[in-house]
Amino acid sequence: MPVKLTAPQAASLLPVRGVQLGFAEAHVRKPNRKDVLVMTLVQGSKVAGVFTLNQFCAAPVILCKEFLAQTSSIRALLVNTGCANAGTGEDGLSRAKQSCEALGALLNLQANQILPFSTGVILEPLPVDKVIAGLPAAIKNLKEDNWLNAAEAIMTTDIVAKGTSRQIQLDGKTVTITGISKGSGMIHPNMATMLGYVATDAAVSQSALESIIKYAVNKSFNCITVDGDTSTNDSLILMATNLAGNAEITEMHADYVVLRDALTDVAIELAQAIVRDGEGATKFMTVKIEGGKDEAECRKVAYAIAHSPLIKTAFFASDPNLGRILAAIGYAGVEKLDVSKLKLYLGDVLVAENGGRATAYREEQGSAIMKEAEILVRVDLVRGDASCTVWTCDFSYDYVKINADYRS
Amino acid sequence: MPVKLTAPQAASLLPVRGVQLGFAEAHVRKPNRKDVLVMTLVQGSKVAGVFTLNQFCAAPVILCKEFLAQTSSIRALLVNTGCANAGTGEDGLSRAKQSCEALGALLNLQANQILPFSTGVILEPLPVDKVIAGLPAAIKNLKEDNWLNAAEAIMTTDIVAKGTSRQIQLDGKTVTITGISKGSGMIHPNMATMLGYVATDAAVSQSALESIIKYAVNKSFNCITVDGDTSTNDSLILMATNLAGNAEITEMHADYVVLRDALTDVAIELAQAIVRDGEGATKFMTVKIEGGKDEAECRKVAYAIAHSPLIKTAFFASDPNLGRILAAIGYAGVEKLDVSKLKLYLGDVLVAENGGRATAYREEQGSAIMKEAEILVRVDLVRGDASCTVWTCDFSYDYVKINADYRS
Repeated sequence: MPVKLTAPQAASLLPVRGVQLGFAEAHVRKPNRKDVLVMTLVQGSKVAGVFTLNQFCAAPVILCKEFLAQTSSIRALLVNTGCANAGTGEDGLSRAKQSCEALGALLNLQANQILPFSTGVILEPLPVDKVIAGLPAAIKNLKEDNWLNAAEAIMTTDIVAKGTSRQIQLDGKTVTITGISKGSGMIHPNMATMLGYVATDAAVSQSALESIIKYAVNKSFNCITVDGDTSTNDSLILMATNLAGNAEITEMHADYVVLRDALTDVAIELAQAIVRDGEGATKFMTVKIEGGKDEAECRKVAYAIAHSPLIKTAFFASDPNLGRILAAIGYAGVEKLDVSKLKLYLGDVLVAENGGRATAYREEQGSAIMKEAEILVRVDLVRGDASCTVWTCDFSYDYVKINADYRS
Repeated sequence: MPVKLTAPQAASLLPVRGVQLGFAEAHVRKPNRKDVLVMTLVQGSKVAGVFTLNQFCAAPVILCKEFLAQTSSIRALLVNTGCANAGTGEDGLSRAKQSCEALGALLNLQANQILPFSTGVILEPLPVDKVIAGLPAAIKNLKEDNWLNAAEAIMTTDIVAKGTSRQIQLDGKTVTITGISKGSGMIHPNMATMLGYVATDAAVSQSALESIIKYAVNKSFNCITVDGDTSTNDSLILMATNLAGNAEITEMHADYVVLRDALTDVAIELAQAIVRDGEGATKFMTVKIEGGKDEAECRKVAYAIAHSPLIKTAFFASDPNLGRILAAIGYAGVEKLDVSKLKLYLGDVLVAENGGRATAYREEQGSAIMKEAEILVRVDLVRGDASCTVWTCDFSYDYVKINADYRS
């Protein structure tokens, strides 16, 4: 079950002026589930995206990058679940393009004004006829107050829908931010590693929007891992509809940081939601590395810990078998690490120092913390000022079950 | 259950002249199990070792390196299970040294003529008194014909004892090679990642022995992974007792390659045995990468596949969800990889080419191969002549169970 995460109430996901959402049950893979989502954006909206670094990236990812380079007038997004349209070669590109053309014909837009997204099984052809057959129904229920349905329509192995909203003041105007995300397995940093859509009605320059998405993704989706597998389809899209009435936010604007931090805050909540709903997760772990020479080495240590199946199964068992964490620090690849200097904390408790167990540490302390649903693992490398934080979950029977059964 | 692996018959593990082995039940962690092993080497034996690259390496690993540098007259090895004596700082070094001093007193040797090894739980103090109390019993049953007992004495989560023998002819003399290993979890390449002891009665120069161990480990223990965790205690020791009567093998000797290949063959069998007995393993996979620009990029791809929990759980389920393999190739970090050129094979069946599923591929073919206990995954990168092979196992419920329960 997800760790301290429940689906948002429909009313808590605030409409963003200029963004409409519609869904359909198109039977892409399974019947009786929302599996197609259409989002439309008012004319004048600005869009920025970041995408997976996987070289086997999916056909829709390739098209998204192409279309964003071709036009500054993206007007709709089309998402399907059930099939990732990845590992599908030229045929996959052609099918993704067909779906954009079909939606374009219905909405009176060019195909390249529509960004396509797919998520699901890799290496299988996209049943594009089914997706296209679902479009009229999705268009029929397009409305601004449809974010929860949209969050549900993009779920795959997710247990709960993920979404959140914020409101901030810019120039005395109320600006709304709403975001949704999906993702549960094949989750690894080094790009969005999921689907995420964040919209705001703020007026923002294209350049500021691009800066903000890079900043936000590095503080959020690039700090999570479930299983270390970087997906072929990860995409995060940031949209700004320019209807809030505020003066356009540029990177020079005094309120740039306000908007950036609010959007980043939404991205962090959505990213953490993916980990809390990680496949089979029973625990949510924050891995914080401090005192590094640079952020890169902090991340090496953080991911060595966050990816270790031995550590993740120990957390599942609530077993303070903390030597496994020392082992992970030791093989993380930090150059000339002096293991006799570093300190390992579990929550607030000092567990290891001077190359071994801390004198005052008692197993009961570790056991008590390991029973919590949210656990902080903190390592002070004591060799510099850099730090980083990574979020992950434990590794349970259910992870194996979900991934052994996923296609059946 | 181990994949096509059973414990060797006692008679199949051939004595190596000049090597005696004795064991004890010393109750290091649990009662009623062999947990201390003493091996003695005849005077004039030569010894070479390779050790974990984990920076949190265990106290005995530190001492082994020290002693091998101090003396060319190693005369005994002392192994305990139940406690890794890693993450134990200065106190751990002192306890490991005490155990060598105690065995030295009993055998009339200097402490630094004895190589210590420990395996088990990390971050707990070595109960050195128990180890020392077990030494007289171990010495009492020292004999040449004791390799199976020795293999059993070094097991931890291993299900079956691991050992093998070979005989070759050098200069018309029969040379015997016998090796044992242990290891099942916390298995990752980049050093031996387990305990392995290989002895031969051949006469070999120290320099040739060092060359051979480096060659053998790169073809064997550095090609396996169970869970990607590099242990704190991995050690592989190669011993040559010089009693076979052959002329000393140097790197210039015509038979150098004969001995090297026979020893490497033993190392490969012992390394593969560790994967076959990998924690929770139900499948044994050979991951072969061909057509790379260099071996380094082949290894990146091989380990991306071999470490992916998504791929390993799909193998557990016998589910040919092969898109996950493309995803792993895509995030392996190979520069400028043209995914439209590479070819993916399962067994002899071409699964993917031209960036997508091969036209002739049928799911039934994949399903049939996935049901086998031993499976070959082959990727041709089609960009060069380099290749590599890695062995791994699947990821099952039992992996989680074993590692969630290990200390309890």
